[in-house]
Amino acid sequence: MVKVEGGVVAPKGFRAAAMNCGIKRKRKDIGLIVSSRPAVACGMFTQNRVKAAPVLVSKEHLKKMTAQAIIVNSGNANCCTGEEGLKDAYEMAGSAAKALGISNEDVLVASTGVIGRELPLDKIRAAIPQLIKDLSEDDGKCIAEAIMTTDKVTKEIAVKIKIKGKDVRIGAVAKGAGMIHPNMATMLCFITTDVNITRRALKLALSNAVDKSFNSISVDGDMSTNDSVIVMANGCAQNVLLDRKDADFKIFSEAIDYVASHLAEAIIRDGEGATKFVRIHIKNAKTLEGAKRIARRVSTSMLFKTALFGQDPNWGRIAACVGASGVMIDPDKLDIYLGKTRVLKDGVGSLKDKDALGKLFKNTDLDVTIDLNSGGKEYSMMTCDISLDYIKINASYTT
Amino acid sequence: MVKVEGGVVAPKGFRAAAMNCGIKRKRKDIGLIVSSRPAVACGMFTQNRVKAAPVLVSKEHLKKMTAQAIIVNSGNANCCTGEEGLKDAYEMAGSAAKALGISNEDVLVASTGVIGRELPLDKIRAAIPQLIKDLSEDDGKCIAEAIMTTDKVTKEIAVKIKIKGKDVRIGAVAKGAGMIHPNMATMLCFITTDVNITRRALKLALSNAVDKSFNSISVDGDMSTNDSVIVMANGCAQNVLLDRKDADFKIFSEAIDYVASHLAEAIIRDGEGATKFVRIHIKNAKTLEGAKRIARRVSTSMLFKTALFGQDPNWGRIAACVGASGVMIDPDKLDIYLGKTRVLKDGVGSLKDKDALGKLFKNTDLDVTIDLNSGGKEYSMMTCDISLDYIKINASYTT
Repeated sequence: MVKVEGGVVAPKGFRAAAMNCGIKRKRKDIGLIVSSRPAVACGMFTQNRVKAAPVLVSKEHLKKMTAQAIIVNSGNANCCTGEEGLKDAYEMAGSAAKALGISNEDVLVASTGVIGRELPLDKIRAAIPQLIKDLSEDDGKCIAEAIMTTDKVTKEIAVKIKIKGKDVRIGAVAKGAGMIHPNMATMLCFITTDVNITRRALKLALSNAVDKSFNSISVDGDMSTNDSVIVMANGCAQNVLLDRKDADFKIFSEAIDYVASHLAEAIIRDGEGATKFVRIHIKNAKTLEGAKRIARRVSTSMLFKTALFGQDPNWGRIAACVGASGVMIDPDKLDIYLGKTRVLKDGVGSLKDKDALGKLFKNTDLDVTIDLNSGGKEYSMMTCDISLDYIKINASYTT
Repeated sequence: MVKVEGGVVAPKGFRAAAMNCGIKRKRKDIGLIVSSRPAVACGMFTQNRVKAAPVLVSKEHLKKMTAQAIIVNSGNANCCTGEEGLKDAYEMAGSAAKALGISNEDVLVASTGVIGRELPLDKIRAAIPQLIKDLSEDDGKCIAEAIMTTDKVTKEIAVKIKIKGKDVRIGAVAKGAGMIHPNMATMLCFITTDVNITRRALKLALSNAVDKSFNSISVDGDMSTNDSVIVMANGCAQNVLLDRKDADFKIFSEAIDYVASHLAEAIIRDGEGATKFVRIHIKNAKTLEGAKRIARRVSTSMLFKTALFGQDPNWGRIAACVGASGVMIDPDKLDIYLGKTRVLKDGVGSLKDKDALGKLFKNTDLDVTIDLNSGGKEYSMMTCDISLDYIKINASYTT
C-alpha cells in the first residue's frame, strides 16, 4: 500500500468540484463527486432516532445498491425541517441528477451544519451548472474544503494497492470536529475507489473499517443527526471481480481500514479546541462489550478530559470512570498505566513521586492503558481533551 | 412543615463540631456529628464499582442498623488506597468511638477529596479530643464547612413537622459541586432527625427521597467513588413509634423529600462554574426508564450545556440528544419547549423569529420541556451549564 495524491479523485473515473453557493458567507459550502459510470455503493448512517432529511434520502437511494454521484452542502444540516426538508433533500439530489443526465436514485445527498433551519434550495439549485462545469480529476481537496464546519484542517487521503495484478486506488475525504462519538456523530466521510468488487464484499469491508475507526472515537460524547459514511466502487481498475472470500479481499479491507483510521485520527486531532490526542486501551476484559463500555465512559468523562487539558495526572478520575461504567469489574485487580508508567496496581495508587507523576500528562500524544486483569478481550479508542476553546466554540455556534 | 435554624443539630440530642486538622492548609477539614443516644440509621452509597474505603466501612457498620456518630474529612477521599486505606478508615471510626466511649460499629465514616493519596490518619486522630470538646448543639454549619471541596457555598437545612402530636425536627447538610450525576456522584449528605421511627420506614423514606433528589441531578455526568447519604433517627422527639403504614409516615416522608430536594437543588446551583440552573421535564414518555434515559442524555450533553452557557438557543442539539438516547422515540411526534415557548412541533422547528429565540436562554433559571407525545410517563431532572470556569476548576484540581 502506498499513499498517493488526489483524495477522492485519485481513483480512476472520479471527478469532483466545489464552490460557495451562498449558504456560508464566503467559504465553499457545496460539493459534487461524480463517477464516470455507475458504482457499487453502500453507506453507514447515524443511529440517532432524529435523522436529517439527507440521511433518509441517501438510505432510500442506496436501496438500488449503485450510485454515481454525491452532492453535499455545509452550513445547514437540513434536520428537524419536516416534510419540506425531505422534499428539499430529494430535490437537491434530483436537480443534480437531471443536470448530470442520470437517474435521481443514482445521486446520494449529505448535509452538515446548523439544525432546524430551512435549506436554501434555490442557492443549491443555482450552483449545480457551475459545479458540473468545474468537475475535475485533479482536485479532491475542494470537497474536503466544502464540507468543513468547525474543522480547522481539511481531511483527505488516498492510497494505491495491487488487487489481482491490477493497480487499485482508494480515496477518501472526511469532516468532523465536534459532536463526535461512537456511532458516528457529526461526521461525513466519502470514500471512492476504482476497485471492481461485489456489493456484499464492499459492505463488509466498510462496516469492519467503520467499527475500528469512526465508531472508536469520541470528542464530546454527542451523536449527530447527519452522520454518513458512503463508499462508491466504480470498477474502473478493471481487476477481476473481488468477493469476500478472495485472498485479495484482505488487502482491500486493510486499505479501507487504513484510510478510515487515518481520517478518524485526523478528526480527533482536529477535535474542537483539542490540545491532546489520547489512545485509551482496555486490556484483559471479560467481554468486548465491557471493554467498549469502559473505553467510552473514560473517553466521555468531563473530569478526565479537563484533567488532560490541565496536564493534571489525576488518575483517580480514570479509576472512578472505570468503576462508574456499569461493567462488573474487580476493583482489586485494576491496573492503570499513563504511557508506560504504572500509576495504579491492584486498585492501589502505585506512583508516589509527584514530580514523576506531574510529567506524565505533558506530552501532546498520550496512551492510557486500563488493564482489568480479568479476561482476554481488548479494545482501543481515540479521544482528546476538553479545553477552554471547546467551550468557546460551542457556546456560540449559531449566534 | 416550617423551616428552622441549626442544620444537623436542629433535631434534639444531636451535637456537632468541626475544625482544621491539617489535611487542608487552613479551612475546616474534619467534622463530627454525635447523637446523645444510639439512633436508627441507614445509608445509600455510590454504585461505583471502585468504592472508597470509608464507604466500605460505613456499609459494614450499618449492618448493625443503628449508629451514634459520623466522622467525616475533606481534602482526601481515601480511595484507591488499598488495604492500608481500609485499615485507616476503620481506625478513623475506631478512634472516634474510643474517645466517645461507644462501640466502633456505632461510628460511620465519610471522606471526600483527591483520590489515591494516603489518608493522614495521625492528623485525624490528633484532632479527635478537640472535636469532642467542641461538640455543641448550637452550630450545624461547621459541618457544612468541613465537608466542602470545590463548593462555593455551604449547604444545610432544617425543618420542623408534627408527627403524632409531637414536634419532630429534621436537619441535613450536604456537599457537592462537581462529579455530580445520578446515583450520587461526589456528594455527601448527612440527615439527622429526632423522630422515633422503625428502620424499615426510615429506609423507605430515604430511598424515595434520594430517588427524587440526588439521583435526579447532573453537573457533569461523572460518578464518584465516595458518595454517601446517611440518616440517623434518635427518637428524642418521643413520638409514638412511626412505621411505614402510619398515616403520619407521609408527613415525615414529604419532609425528608423536601430536605433532600432542597440540598440537591443547592448542589446544582453551586455546580462547578455553573451560570444556569435548568429543569428538564420529559413528558408523555412510553416508559419511566425511557424518560430517565432521555433526561440524563440531555443533561449530560456537552453541546447542550455549552449552548446554555453561551445563551445560544440551539434547540437542535436538544433534539439530537433525544434521538441519541437510545430510546425508541417517534421523531415526528417530538415537541420541545424552552420555557413556555414551543420551538419544535412534531419534529419540525416551529419558531422562526430569531430575536424571540435569542431571548429564550437569557434567564438564569430555565425550563426545558421535551414532550414525546407517546405515553403517560413523566420525569424531571435538574442540571446546569458547562462554563469556562468549569474547565478552569477541573483542569488543575490536584496541581
